[in-house]
Amino acid sequence: MRVVVLRLGHRPERDMRITTHVGLVARAFGAEEMLLAARDQGVVDSLEDVVKRWGGSFAVRHDVRWREEVREFRESGGVVVHLTMYGSRLSEVMDQIRAHDRIMVAVGAEKVPADLYGMADWNVGVGNQPHSEVAALAVFLDRLMEGKELDREFQGQLKIVPTPRGKQVVERSPAGDGMPDQGD
Amino acid sequence: MRVVVLRLGHRPERDMRITTHVGLVARAFGAEEMLLAARDQGVVDSLEDVVKRWGGSFAVRHDVRWREEVREFRESGGVVVHLTMYGSRLSEVMDQIRAHDRIMVAVGAEKVPADLYGMADWNVGVGNQPHSEVAALAVFLDRLMEGKELDREFQGQLKIVPTPRGKQVVERSPAGDGMPDQGD
Repeated sequence: MRVVVLRLGHRPERDMRITTHVGLVARAFGAEEMLLAARDQGVVDSLEDVVKRWGGSFAVRHDVRWREEVREFRESGGVVVHLTMYGSRLSEVMDQIRAHDRIMVAVGAEKVPADLYGMADWNVGVGNQPHSEVAALAVFLDRLMEGKELDREFQGQLKIVPTPRGKQVVERSPAGDGMPDQGD
Repeated sequence: MRVVVLRLGHRPERDMRITTHVGLVARAFGAEEMLLAARDQGVVDSLEDVVKRWGGSFAVRHDVRWREEVREFRESGGVVVHLTMYGSRLSEVMDQIRAHDRIMVAVGAEKVPADLYGMADWNVGVGNQPHSEVAALAVFLDRLMEGKELDREFQGQLKIVPTPRGKQVVERSPAGDGMPDQGD
């Protein structure tokens, strides 16, 4: 299965950290690419830096024309899932979505253009309460991949050895000038 | 099962949006309370506003002394799970954690005090790659509650009717001056 994440509605400065989290989640949960429908080299640089140190082949493109990307993705046989609190219940549509091989997952910021609702194959609510596009994307991908993505190995300069106490990091080359984190 | 989320390492201003997302995720994924180990009335207000409009009994306390909270929680029979990319694999410890009735989930920002690793009953990695505390919390709670939390009903002024296209919101009272969102 190949997954691409499309990030819409990004406002440079204000959304920099949230969009970076969206990109990190996309990578960590098995997507191969994030398309950013805004120009923000800072987000691209910070994600590429993580890829360089932590491995994998995750790619980022910014300043994309999202309507063209959606159209081309669908024309080449992919399906588009728009995550929105207003959408169908996740549990009711997941099996249909998982039957597809190439999936674009669109996540907006506070507002998305109304035509996205019509262009997507599915509008899906990861719950129907307000919360976070970062969380919605993570839970969607975790369920899509049935939890298997978290045990995937990335071949990077840095590698964590899971441990019940403290921190164990293996460094494979003399690069790496600090460690980003998932929550501490 | 009763779940409390403890948010550490919050820096006012810089982390306001991320911490608000942490709180919204806590509420939407079934936690009953968030404790914030920093003083930030803005975060409290914005979460309380969501509770008022969207329902449920989610509570927020800020400016807590986290070590005391952790100690008291454990003394009263609860267990503490610290989410960190360095921790044990989620899939290996989830069954042990789920056997407990009262669970505190601690999520940090970029750095957490080192003693937390020793005070927690489990240090758990939602994957061992850098991503996002918002995502880590959501996936942890989704798996903890085996996906059931997303179909829970909240009794609020506003209620979404899940729909494949567009937006259907039922308003039960004349309050509500706009709708927060989970990703558009």
